[in-house]
Amino acid sequence: MKTDLDMLMTERGIDAVMILGNAENNPAMYYFTGGGHVTNAVLMIPRAGKPVLYCNAMERGEAEKSGLQTVPMRTAPMEELARNPAEFLRQAGLVTGRVAVMGHANVASAFHIADRIRAEVPSIALVGEEQERAMLLYAMETKDEAEVARIRAVGEITVEVVGKVQQYLTTRDVREDAVLLDEGGEPLTIRKVKRKIALWLAERGAADPEGCILSIGHDAGIPHSVGNPDDVFRLGETIVFDIFPAEAGGGYFYDFTRTWSLGFAHPDAQALYDEVSDAYRTIVENLDLNASFKEYNQLACDLFHKKGHATPMHAEGVVLDGYVHSLGHGVGLNIHERPFSRPTSSDDNRLKPGAVFTIEPGLYYPDRNMGVRIEDTYWVRPDGRIERLVEYPYDFVLQMKSPKASETSVRGARSAGDR
Amino acid sequence: MKTDLDMLMTERGIDAVMILGNAENNPAMYYFTGGGHVTNAVLMIPRAGKPVLYCNAMERGEAEKSGLQTVPMRTAPMEELARNPAEFLRQAGLVTGRVAVMGHANVASAFHIADRIRAEVPSIALVGEEQERAMLLYAMETKDEAEVARIRAVGEITVEVVGKVQQYLTTRDVREDAVLLDEGGEPLTIRKVKRKIALWLAERGAADPEGCILSIGHDAGIPHSVGNPDDVFRLGETIVFDIFPAEAGGGYFYDFTRTWSLGFAHPDAQALYDEVSDAYRTIVENLDLNASFKEYNQLACDLFHKKGHATPMHAEGVVLDGYVHSLGHGVGLNIHERPFSRPTSSDDNRLKPGAVFTIEPGLYYPDRNMGVRIEDTYWVRPDGRIERLVEYPYDFVLQMKSPKASETSVRGARSAGDR
Repeated sequence: MKTDLDMLMTERGIDAVMILGNAENNPAMYYFTGGGHVTNAVLMIPRAGKPVLYCNAMERGEAEKSGLQTVPMRTAPMEELARNPAEFLRQAGLVTGRVAVMGHANVASAFHIADRIRAEVPSIALVGEEQERAMLLYAMETKDEAEVARIRAVGEITVEVVGKVQQYLTTRDVREDAVLLDEGGEPLTIRKVKRKIALWLAERGAADPEGCILSIGHDAGIPHSVGNPDDVFRLGETIVFDIFPAEAGGGYFYDFTRTWSLGFAHPDAQALYDEVSDAYRTIVENLDLNASFKEYNQLACDLFHKKGHATPMHAEGVVLDGYVHSLGHGVGLNIHERPFSRPTSSDDNRLKPGAVFTIEPGLYYPDRNMGVRIEDTYWVRPDGRIERLVEYPYDFVLQMKSPKASETSVRGARSAGDR
Repeated sequence: MKTDLDMLMTERGIDAVMILGNAENNPAMYYFTGGGHVTNAVLMIPRAGKPVLYCNAMERGEAEKSGLQTVPMRTAPMEELARNPAEFLRQAGLVTGRVAVMGHANVASAFHIADRIRAEVPSIALVGEEQERAMLLYAMETKDEAEVARIRAVGEITVEVVGKVQQYLTTRDVREDAVLLDEGGEPLTIRKVKRKIALWLAERGAADPEGCILSIGHDAGIPHSVGNPDDVFRLGETIVFDIFPAEAGGGYFYDFTRTWSLGFAHPDAQALYDEVSDAYRTIVENLDLNASFKEYNQLACDLFHKKGHATPMHAEGVVLDGYVHSLGHGVGLNIHERPFSRPTSSDDNRLKPGAVFTIEPGLYYPDRNMGVRIEDTYWVRPDGRIERLVEYPYDFVLQMKSPKASETSVRGARSAGDR
């Protein structure tokens, strides 16, 4: 919660937080401003004090919508700060102490500001933060019910759009060689479907600031390959569809993945799916209030290792086949935030009340043209129960509904799939 | 041009450029990668050497699409760099020298990386950059024809969408009190029209990563007020519509503004529009190859000052009424980049071949419920001619086409407009 910030600052000996950048598409800033078209701004939060938003006078109307105290300036506050740091910081009541600098912003400008402050106000020390240990990630980790309601609302939009994609794919006509066709009879590409996804999200007031992952075959075997835009959909190939939209303007995210095979599945892909699905269910059934998140990553590694897959816990160096990532991560204003589940994550990454996090085991074999991931977003409720925020079926094989697809082409595809 | 980078590094005594952050929605990184889902990456560019993209192994497929040399790592490169800076930099061939740090990224993490490098590799100095003097802005300032073609294509989408907005607004039914009605007979709000704009952009493969400005009356009088979502459209009020979409994923921007008044205009607003329009024409007619951009800002100030308006060149402190911003800015992967036209901008901000920039004079009177801005994006061609990249009419009063609007309500609105 925001109210944790004072305690966190005290613990770390921080006298003020200084957040740089825009009010939107900038999680640290958005957490306090709630967005708005305020650019290259500076938000100062003294310990035990109230946030003050420094803004360009031109953008004062936008800044005022935040409900924060605002100070309009002649040009962008980041520039004012670089130009005359002593004056700026004196105005802000800061003459000495440790200031934690944050924000998603222009790093070169931030380093320039730091150089100027070092030169002109040596009594102030600017302090960075290790990514996973950032103070605000600790504050953001526990969501209040209003935040969870917003995440769930994005989740509802997410599954609506996923449903539309499923409906669209399964009603395509299919060529003799198992290639799906679009409305115009042309091979259906990832590009075309992604365009529709962007549209369906925009219609619902959501955005996909980081795009989505829609990858087929070989690319499905590389977890973060977003898919080659020119790849075409074919029956019997694994499709990883990982979609992580946010409220437009840089608000709360949702994170969701399904893996599909259209018409039928290659037996190896089906076996892979079943293994991921079994692990997913075992993990979800064992989720426990206040448990350490990385223990479940260990559990996933153990489950997959037993089945003969490589995992980061059972191999040296970079793992490219098998279980190659960690089990999940917190979701909020950042698509990846606390709690983390990586082997290196600190032990205080726990499933405590207010946490919103993903569970997303997966197995990847790019050279065998397949990959599988299943992902949902969960919430630890104030009463300690762990709830999946939205529901969606777990079908792997999606039956084609177009008459042409269900006849000749599945047969054709099976042989193509055997290549 | 990218090829200017070596010269810029030499001039400034920089041995390597280090760009932090994601490959997309990060102008410095995108300039070299062309986008892609590569997160918390590090791009190293030694002077007189080739860029090398360090990526998470999970994202190697995406990284490879950049065509750059890639180095897959076990986790995100920004983390690897913080964990073991000496090893990372040694691998990159960097043991000593001045390294310019760039990118739109997590500032706290960047400061942490800097602390770690200072502690473990003191022979390397990380260097920041003043925003307007950033090396890459100098390189990006001169666009090649492929870049201009992409900017123009976004411009064409922009005016298509602006045309759709104009068509939509002018075909609304209007209530007795001059309020426009949506399809369902409800008052038409900014929120509803912005939703449509996002949709029309998404349909065309463009995004509005920073939203758009669509503001009415008082808010139109504050240049960067994006407009209150619940404000309703009324006949006879000034509407500032400033739209700056980009290629989805963080590519090239276009920047465009028109000011409209629906049905009729208040005589004061019409007079204000005419003054801005006259200034706009005078400035555009006088644009000259290699001229200093800020001289045209001075010209705008002089033109408006003569008409009795306040300007930043003719007033002390923050100017809130009159001509309150500067004349224009470069447009590219950044919505605001070189050349700049501000009084404080360096004299080398010139209209040289390859520059793409806006001309956007405006006058603002929030307390009189009006503001006017006219903006187009221009290109200095290799042959020295200055070309407007896309065309759109400059009508201020948009005639309403709905029969109900043209009869009773314009009359009613005129009296409402006189309040």
